[in-house]
Amino acid sequence: MRVLGIDPGLQTTGFGVVDVDGHALRYVASGTISTRHMATTELPARLKVLFDGIGELSTRYQPDAASVEIVFVNVNPQSTLLLGQARGACLTALVTNGLPVAEYTATQMKQAVAGHGRAAKDQVREMVRRLLELPGLPGSDAADALGLAITHAQVGRVRARLGAATTLAPKASGLYKGGRSR
Amino acid sequence: MRVLGIDPGLQTTGFGVVDVDGHALRYVASGTISTRHMATTELPARLKVLFDGIGELSTRYQPDAASVEIVFVNVNPQSTLLLGQARGACLTALVTNGLPVAEYTATQMKQAVAGHGRAAKDQVREMVRRLLELPGLPGSDAADALGLAITHAQVGRVRARLGAATTLAPKASGLYKGGRSR
Repeated sequence: MRVLGIDPGLQTTGFGVVDVDGHALRYVASGTISTRHMATTELPARLKVLFDGIGELSTRYQPDAASVEIVFVNVNPQSTLLLGQARGACLTALVTNGLPVAEYTATQMKQAVAGHGRAAKDQVREMVRRLLELPGLPGSDAADALGLAITHAQVGRVRARLGAATTLAPKASGLYKGGRSR
Repeated sequence: MRVLGIDPGLQTTGFGVVDVDGHALRYVASGTISTRHMATTELPARLKVLFDGIGELSTRYQPDAASVEIVFVNVNPQSTLLLGQARGACLTALVTNGLPVAEYTATQMKQAVAGHGRAAKDQVREMVRRLLELPGLPGSDAADALGLAITHAQVGRVRARLGAATTLAPKASGLYKGGRSR
């Protein structure tokens, strides 16, 4: 299974592509879609860059599933609104490209990657580097996106195991359950 | 010129299509795209309904421009985030379909349609009915969307007049200026 992780943001949307084969994880690609140079451009055009960028990633890497960070309300309501619009463009691009979308909080991602939900940015980068055997540290946005892809891979494994255990474990613990943004 | 007005919302997105020929306005269509029946569905699928719905409107009515309400932060930050994501899906659909997008606040729309920015919902519906010579009152979401299309039509006329006046009026007053959501 190939997973596309997306860490949505208006200025910078991180992406990471990871192949999952049982317990083996393989790095495929990562980076950012940036609209930082478009600060004076109208919002609709910036959202189109995010939408088109995700469309290109889908076409190029042909992922089987997407894993997207659940964003939270910001102290600044105007920022919350902008982040919401960016996330809306990203989610729309993923479903338009036929990808099933799982959603995880940053805490769930940190728990899955670094073992505790309050891991610092640099710990996440270092753990992603180790898990994917990268030659160097990934950038912060790309690391978060790769972490989301890894999280989804782990959840898949947990679910498969629980499925095998059948009635002994009727539901997943909820720790890695894809939350709803509503 | 044919204008597609959009009043974005996750549960209900209103739309209205109006033809503009000089001072003449002609009603073409209006209604809502609803995801109200999908309350238990994951957010990405609901955003896809909005995105696809706007794509269908673009194909069917072939508008020349879109006019979208600028949304404001809600008292409930979680609602702000959801509204932002719905608006992001709508804007993305419009630009993906090649439409130039103008943005107006509800106050600007009420000013343009009813003559004052604090007009009540029912006054907006009644004024939209009169301006477009409709046989009955439009629904509230459709009325707002038709009002946004009318607002954009009026701004076009004001701009054309100011263009003719040249240096006497170097800029539009700002009253109807398409605001940026940022």
